[in-house]
Amino acid sequence: MFNKILIANRGEIALRIIRTCREMGIKTVAVYSTADKDSLHVRFADEAVCIGKPHSSDSYLNIPHIIAAAEITNADAIHPGYGFLAENARFAQICQHHNIKFIGPTPEMISQMGDKNTAKATMIRAGVPVVPGVEGLLGSVDHAIDSAKKIGYPVILKATAGGGGKGMRVVWKEEEMERNYTAAKQEAAASFKNDGIYMEKFVQEPRHIEIQVAGDQHGNVCHLSERDCSIQRRHQKLVEESPSPFMTPELRQKMGDAAVKAAAAINYEGLGTIEFLVDKDRNFYFMEMNTRVQVEHCVTEEVIKFDLIKEQILIAMGEKISGNNYIPELHAIEVRINAEDPFHDFRPSPGKIKVFNTPGGQGVRVDSHAYAGYVIPPYYDSMIGKLIVVARTREDAIKKMRRALREFVIEGVKTTIPFAQQIMRNEDFQKGNFTTKFLETFEAKEP
Amino acid sequence: MFNKILIANRGEIALRIIRTCREMGIKTVAVYSTADKDSLHVRFADEAVCIGKPHSSDSYLNIPHIIAAAEITNADAIHPGYGFLAENARFAQICQHHNIKFIGPTPEMISQMGDKNTAKATMIRAGVPVVPGVEGLLGSVDHAIDSAKKIGYPVILKATAGGGGKGMRVVWKEEEMERNYTAAKQEAAASFKNDGIYMEKFVQEPRHIEIQVAGDQHGNVCHLSERDCSIQRRHQKLVEESPSPFMTPELRQKMGDAAVKAAAAINYEGLGTIEFLVDKDRNFYFMEMNTRVQVEHCVTEEVIKFDLIKEQILIAMGEKISGNNYIPELHAIEVRINAEDPFHDFRPSPGKIKVFNTPGGQGVRVDSHAYAGYVIPPYYDSMIGKLIVVARTREDAIKKMRRALREFVIEGVKTTIPFAQQIMRNEDFQKGNFTTKFLETFEAKEP
Repeated sequence: MFNKILIANRGEIALRIIRTCREMGIKTVAVYSTADKDSLHVRFADEAVCIGKPHSSDSYLNIPHIIAAAEITNADAIHPGYGFLAENARFAQICQHHNIKFIGPTPEMISQMGDKNTAKATMIRAGVPVVPGVEGLLGSVDHAIDSAKKIGYPVILKATAGGGGKGMRVVWKEEEMERNYTAAKQEAAASFKNDGIYMEKFVQEPRHIEIQVAGDQHGNVCHLSERDCSIQRRHQKLVEESPSPFMTPELRQKMGDAAVKAAAAINYEGLGTIEFLVDKDRNFYFMEMNTRVQVEHCVTEEVIKFDLIKEQILIAMGEKISGNNYIPELHAIEVRINAEDPFHDFRPSPGKIKVFNTPGGQGVRVDSHAYAGYVIPPYYDSMIGKLIVVARTREDAIKKMRRALREFVIEGVKTTIPFAQQIMRNEDFQKGNFTTKFLETFEAKEP
Repeated sequence: MFNKILIANRGEIALRIIRTCREMGIKTVAVYSTADKDSLHVRFADEAVCIGKPHSSDSYLNIPHIIAAAEITNADAIHPGYGFLAENARFAQICQHHNIKFIGPTPEMISQMGDKNTAKATMIRAGVPVVPGVEGLLGSVDHAIDSAKKIGYPVILKATAGGGGKGMRVVWKEEEMERNYTAAKQEAAASFKNDGIYMEKFVQEPRHIEIQVAGDQHGNVCHLSERDCSIQRRHQKLVEESPSPFMTPELRQKMGDAAVKAAAAINYEGLGTIEFLVDKDRNFYFMEMNTRVQVEHCVTEEVIKFDLIKEQILIAMGEKISGNNYIPELHAIEVRINAEDPFHDFRPSPGKIKVFNTPGGQGVRVDSHAYAGYVIPPYYDSMIGKLIVVARTREDAIKKMRRALREFVIEGVKTTIPFAQQIMRNEDFQKGNFTTKFLETFEAKEP
């Protein structure tokens, strides 16, 4: 049993983890940058340590400072949340060296899945379907052009160390290759300090459907059903739901089996997510594995009624999981509430929140570190919370989301609430008739 | 299908009903007294009609004003919520006369269960166990003294038109009868304009366990399991949960059967609650039937995952219910958050709420009409919200409630939050080892 966990993160996920630790009777240490001193994760943790200046590289990505904070406070485990150091194998390794349990998989598993190219090779060996592509990294523009000829356009260039859409470029014809190749490499270098780029067939109009998996230290692996995250803007998810409206029992069986096979192939330990692209004929292809908790884990929690952060901590403590797969009987939808102006290219809208009235009532959950008076700093991602609803049917869940969005009052900054409201009213969305391209043609109107 | 529902209530329950109506696509009309013009139920309804001055008799109990509001706005149904006119058979009758559907049972059913003495007789005929008592009303002090001799002290005097603890007196010995008899009659007359008093054996150290029932217009009746409401202060419930920690599968079967029999005996239509006293040997006695939604309906919603207000509206529209009984697989606890000073005899603490930060996260639900800046008027009950948690076990639910109570920040008025926090930390409460007497000996400490 852990006595004290340090949370190497900020914002809603830091608060989320603190909440579960408190319920489990585990003490918590928050770390924070000087920009986050008034954040709720600092207020609600048992202890808090300032680890540096606002910029992430000085604080939330500063491994020596975080390890020092854990040692000073005698924390026996670190929960990395998502983003920042959550999929940094070196950080997990350093934790190990300092005899601090990293709550997540081993450094080897993170490396194996974190490098997208290695991950793909692992999946091919495990018999999990993958998107057709070139083996290995691209060595040059010419290599890229030759490869694309073999695969057939359109193709997609991806950063091998990537995530969240950075370093990704779709190339539709040969003339566009050089420009995109150079741009992808530069973006990858800037974002991940690793400019390795690989190429895949670009699956057109796909759905993004991911399977939540869990594995323990005793070799048990199970899946906790799927999430549909097709509503994305530039690879940033905006709306997530479980189950997927596109799912059939047969497809769930097949994708669930593949996901369990994928996790079992690396003796996976912890919570993880196998992301798939699913085409219109319900062929599915492994995209990547996230070796951490996802932002959208809440929709799974709402439909299967488990606390996933608790499961994560129990697994890290060496507990056994049941190994049973879970199929949802309810329907949950999550909307990310970002401090952005959705009618002006989603430009960030940091600043002081003057009014913050959250919706409530049956089937409504809010996960947010914001409050009236909170100042959103300009240094980090713009998510200020997640609104999750759960109901007996998808139709009812959409109606509940519309009602809850309407009740959510945030004044002082612009938010994505009115945009999400328009998605909920969209007929194609309501019919479950959408792909990852949905937002490209979706026309939101400034109210 | 109703097109528009008028909600003849205020506060959290008015908002609760509006939320469900909105999700069902039914328009809503709020009514409000001049004291409630800034209330959320007014803000969130599609239309709002002021029905009079602050005192309830001028507004929320003013039947002509409410009927006029319904007629002006063309509402085709009225939801009475709880309290005020919810169990007023005459009001239900007047709605009928005006061709407005009263969302609840028929006036005859309300009368039959509203008069506690008639209700008891009905239950005896239906074969439902009742507390031993005197048949009919007490005619005089002498009648009361003679009756108590037959039943054996202690006895309890109850107002036949009563509810909520008003007009109730426990008498432990003959010398105390006259004083209590007179007081109970006066209180009954003042509270209910009906001074009818009856007598029962006083069941010592009982638990208050109630069964949620539902019946439709087609003769289907089912139960939705129990709620334990033993944590009461002067017959006012403070903490409610489902399932009851005292419950066994056998007792649930027996109490469920009795509750369904009770509802079926009057062809009950709508949502209702059969309240039982359960003694330490698990004998149970019918106490009363509430022919409306209860404050604590949310704990049932959380463990069976149904929207009970929606069910209520569907039943009123003539829909069939499944008729299946539901057994909880989760554990939910509700705490009522009142604007009262728990360390000074729970005296009301009306006034302006300056800070109102609600807890969130997994398994946490808040039903409240309050917000930062809201002024709690001194005219009505002091409840400003309900905090409900749900988890896989009672132990986890208690931990979650402690965590959520700790996060709940209300500044500007005194609240019962610190008192509830101390209940959650109490060992007897944690063990499920409590009766309705729990709060009589519970010593809360001012923090």
